[in-house]
Amino acid sequence: MAEESTNDLPPELSVDVPALTDLLDGRYAEIRRTVREMLPAYASVLEDAETMTRADFRERVKDVVLEMAGTGATGMGFPEEYDGGGDIGASIAAFETLGYGDLSVLVKVGVQFGLFGGAILQLGTKRHHDAYLADIVNGRLLGCFAMTETGHGSNVQALGTVATYDPETSEFVVTTTTPSAGKDYIGNAAAHARVAVVFAQLEVGGEGHGVHALVVPVRDEAGDPLPGVRVEDDGHKMGLNGVDNGRLWFDGVRVPREALLNRFADVTEDGTYTSEIESPGRRFFTMLGTLVQGRVSVGAAGISASKVALTVAIRYALQRRQFEATDEGSEELLLDYGLHQRRLLPLLARTYALHFAQEVLTGALHDVFSGIDTDEESRRLLESRAAGTKALATWHATRSIQESREACGGAGYLAVNRFAALKADTDVFTTFEGDNHVLLQLVAKGLLTDYASDFEDLDQLGMVRFVAGLAVETVLERTKAHQLLEQIRDLLPGGGGDDWDTDAGLLDPAYHLAMLRFREEHLIGGVARRLKRGVDSGMNAGEVFSRVQDHVIASARAHVEREVLEAFVDKVAATPEGPLRDVLNALCDLYALSVIEADRAWFLEHGRLTSARSKAITREVGDLCRRLRPVAGDLVAAFAVPEPLLRAPDLIGGGR
Amino acid sequence: MAEESTNDLPPELSVDVPALTDLLDGRYAEIRRTVREMLPAYASVLEDAETMTRADFRERVKDVVLEMAGTGATGMGFPEEYDGGGDIGASIAAFETLGYGDLSVLVKVGVQFGLFGGAILQLGTKRHHDAYLADIVNGRLLGCFAMTETGHGSNVQALGTVATYDPETSEFVVTTTTPSAGKDYIGNAAAHARVAVVFAQLEVGGEGHGVHALVVPVRDEAGDPLPGVRVEDDGHKMGLNGVDNGRLWFDGVRVPREALLNRFADVTEDGTYTSEIESPGRRFFTMLGTLVQGRVSVGAAGISASKVALTVAIRYALQRRQFEATDEGSEELLLDYGLHQRRLLPLLARTYALHFAQEVLTGALHDVFSGIDTDEESRRLLESRAAGTKALATWHATRSIQESREACGGAGYLAVNRFAALKADTDVFTTFEGDNHVLLQLVAKGLLTDYASDFEDLDQLGMVRFVAGLAVETVLERTKAHQLLEQIRDLLPGGGGDDWDTDAGLLDPAYHLAMLRFREEHLIGGVARRLKRGVDSGMNAGEVFSRVQDHVIASARAHVEREVLEAFVDKVAATPEGPLRDVLNALCDLYALSVIEADRAWFLEHGRLTSARSKAITREVGDLCRRLRPVAGDLVAAFAVPEPLLRAPDLIGGGR
Repeated sequence: MAEESTNDLPPELSVDVPALTDLLDGRYAEIRRTVREMLPAYASVLEDAETMTRADFRERVKDVVLEMAGTGATGMGFPEEYDGGGDIGASIAAFETLGYGDLSVLVKVGVQFGLFGGAILQLGTKRHHDAYLADIVNGRLLGCFAMTETGHGSNVQALGTVATYDPETSEFVVTTTTPSAGKDYIGNAAAHARVAVVFAQLEVGGEGHGVHALVVPVRDEAGDPLPGVRVEDDGHKMGLNGVDNGRLWFDGVRVPREALLNRFADVTEDGTYTSEIESPGRRFFTMLGTLVQGRVSVGAAGISASKVALTVAIRYALQRRQFEATDEGSEELLLDYGLHQRRLLPLLARTYALHFAQEVLTGALHDVFSGIDTDEESRRLLESRAAGTKALATWHATRSIQESREACGGAGYLAVNRFAALKADTDVFTTFEGDNHVLLQLVAKGLLTDYASDFEDLDQLGMVRFVAGLAVETVLERTKAHQLLEQIRDLLPGGGGDDWDTDAGLLDPAYHLAMLRFREEHLIGGVARRLKRGVDSGMNAGEVFSRVQDHVIASARAHVEREVLEAFVDKVAATPEGPLRDVLNALCDLYALSVIEADRAWFLEHGRLTSARSKAITREVGDLCRRLRPVAGDLVAAFAVPEPLLRAPDLIGGGR
Repeated sequence: MAEESTNDLPPELSVDVPALTDLLDGRYAEIRRTVREMLPAYASVLEDAETMTRADFRERVKDVVLEMAGTGATGMGFPEEYDGGGDIGASIAAFETLGYGDLSVLVKVGVQFGLFGGAILQLGTKRHHDAYLADIVNGRLLGCFAMTETGHGSNVQALGTVATYDPETSEFVVTTTTPSAGKDYIGNAAAHARVAVVFAQLEVGGEGHGVHALVVPVRDEAGDPLPGVRVEDDGHKMGLNGVDNGRLWFDGVRVPREALLNRFADVTEDGTYTSEIESPGRRFFTMLGTLVQGRVSVGAAGISASKVALTVAIRYALQRRQFEATDEGSEELLLDYGLHQRRLLPLLARTYALHFAQEVLTGALHDVFSGIDTDEESRRLLESRAAGTKALATWHATRSIQESREACGGAGYLAVNRFAALKADTDVFTTFEGDNHVLLQLVAKGLLTDYASDFEDLDQLGMVRFVAGLAVETVLERTKAHQLLEQIRDLLPGGGGDDWDTDAGLLDPAYHLAMLRFREEHLIGGVARRLKRGVDSGMNAGEVFSRVQDHVIASARAHVEREVLEAFVDKVAATPEGPLRDVLNALCDLYALSVIEADRAWFLEHGRLTSARSKAITREVGDLCRRLRPVAGDLVAAFAVPEPLLRAPDLIGGGR
């Protein structure tokens, strides 16, 4: 626990709310505004989620999604020739903004246009585009993305559904081979999908070619399952009950050869398998890589959900008095309590940080998928960044929504505000589009192998063996920790010697970055050494991985937190001097120092903090919270969550 | 991140499951078994919660509660002369076990028998007992406990409802004076309560006497609100929708003089206020203190909910394989992953620790309320212990349920397992029966003022002024940190000098206790000094409190964690040598070391850990997880959650 700081505080902060909203909106201000203006018309969906039966609510959500499709807001990512908007970045921005509204609507949009439509667009070729895309964009054809199986969640390469080519009829025969190979948790499957993109092991002439995707009709015009297709409802879920998740089994369902989404591989009529990508693993990961947009979208939605929760909680804290009648007549608002500031303001700073990191990610997605960045390296970095940002953004959503709910006390428990649905609906974000821990392992794998050419092929055990097979020098070379250490020393008065325990440089972004870079490099180097030593000592790769796994996850998390900080620091640097920059600067400091504070045990253990400086950081976090307190209302107002979507107006007052 | 330990592991652990269940059941084994045998008949309520309309589900839950009342399981805490069981400890054990089932049923039981019945029992006298208790115990009279108001949650002393004595008619006139004085979130109020225990400011002859409780009829035989009573439904909630929470307003409602629950204060017919307790503040806190059972019960329920969640998650992790086809054929189960062990097993150890702490608390409650411990000190320690245990147990529930859900991936999101309802239903536990942060402030107040005689009177500002008014010596005397420091040194080889960075004593409970005691004393001493210095420097008491608040909370939390560890260490010591004691010992070590690990930054900052020893603790936590891994299934089996209450049998397999 820190002592009070005796420093003079810097000048008071002030916020021009519309200007800050413009800055947050950035390049995609227009589509964001359009969606924000559209959403209030659907505010009643939030109530429908509570009052309607599951069956009725699913229909209601479907109708809303189809209406939205009519406005063009959901088709921004498709080519203009198929009635799309032709702008991938804008499609993410639109989806992100939809995250202010009911999340069943959001996820149904994601299933229909992102996953199903996205798979046809990215894995198919012109014949599929011509056949389906315009109908998908306009909502005339609803479909589902049938990848996950009951027994195979994160391990897509091991899927059990099989598609066997029959040269006699030029058809594929799709079959669910075992109970654990049933498709499961598939959005749109239980009620609305006419067509499924089915991921299955492709077998041609008795030979397996790994997982590929095919278009398989699953329902007739009347909505009944087609012959050979069995459907089961996943039933009631914790949240998102407006989305009809279900299970699908295929019993020898025949589809024409042309049903194969053949952008990366094809089968000729006579039964010859062809692909421009020779390595099956590489082919698989290239296919999967085109679906990265789903992860980018879920992360964006998590950030929006956090913004809604913090808007409600901070506005509540600005009008609620906990112990009204103190004899000094001080009648403090909840947000005047130090603890309350501590609970909410670092989460607010992290939300801003993630917003700007997401902006960088959306830009990278746009550039790679619009053909602006065409090299392999950009694509790999995009995939890694998408995985890491998704993990941190969705964990942040879970945490900030929970803290916001608790900060509203009993009022936070009533469904009439947003928390009940926010909690229940976002809960699965940490799992779908990739379990967060698995995603962070993917990030770490990239860091450890330096995105080596056979990167995509490596599973956990492959990674262990790959790293263990490197020369010691290679491992150490990859660890730039030593250089970084010197950099930190250079930044500190007295060269990081006895003077370390001062407050000097605590608010210097170069110091923050150096600390996070040092942690990242040191952790990655440590993982590499431990993997190598484990294998050298004779443990099998599985056991080595099991023991080092939390270290692996920590290194990836450190990497992503550093990326997020860089995005924020860059944004501050790019903002013209003035009050707006001052407030962003204070938020960025608060993000950086609360990240360091949360992991200060590690920095202490590794000699990068003295006790005195560690306490100084805790003190500075408190000071920054107090400094930001007067503008907290403005900082959430700038998120511009449409008022009707906040509900419970009596709980949160009229605004700032 | 820690390196692998090269220590030889101690001998393998084994568990005799029925023997461990007996040990957990303890003194109240009989009633626990009775309730466990009763619960499967109500397993269908778990499904009804998902499928029924809110109105129907409320009726269903009411019917179940009335049926249970018929078995005697819900009336254990009432005197035998009113058809109760006459055993307060057993009533807590029964309630705790009900926490394995649907939580709307649990909370409705708590509202009816704990809060409503408990208030009549504890605040009333024979005339009230004779009039109401038998009907309450048998479920013939449903009532509610109308304390909280829209504008007054944690600050009960500031309630706005007024009860004015009218000597002309010998009646009290009950009135809701302002919009924020409306009773809110009141369980049983929206539909079922015939009678309310209303907390109101008592006014006699123009003089205010503070908050008192009165019995006020609110509905007629037909279930319609009585004249002057206005009722509103709180509507849909995040969870617990089988409980009819509502709002109540009173417009000049007249009740006879005898309606005053007059155990601690009375009004004579001619309008004279009398009380054996002179100080109004002390009177108020004496009344409130009799209601401590509610807090004890909520904490118990939180622990039971954690047990259910961990049972599902650990059984799932013992049958689910994440990456099946590794080329070494290792086919690891989820629980073979180091990270998965790390996520679940420390939570399991903490659940055991809290179970034993709750057992001590239940014993203390029983002894104080059965007249075995009659001194004031015992009562105050009970209140402090109840507040602290409730806070830690309910936060633990939130955390362990969330982690368990995430550890089950997508399967955890389906309502067919328990997580959806567990999360939603328990969420409010951190808020009701006292907001956790406010409760920890209460704990800290006791520690800081050494339960001084005017303890109960002190609000936040009073506490600041009280501590600031103490002589410096008194503050320092209270801080036994220095002695403890020597004790830690004595426990360590080399006197805590250069040898500190060894593994020596890491598994010594005396070391664990000394560490937690040192932290507690140091934090409390620090709070006292900061409060004193703040006031001395001229800040007003509110600002001083606001700045020191997180330190106050941290000291209370440290105190409770130490109490919990002591309860666990005592239990281990009382267990005969043998396999059962070995396994409890390992769990206790894991609890203690993971508490220290979680706060190792603090210990490092305060010179109580070196970097090397801090890393050794992290390593030891990993070792303990690996050691407990083979008995993890047995450890949850010993909780004896009835199989039908676990639902989703295909997700969690047939058992261990």
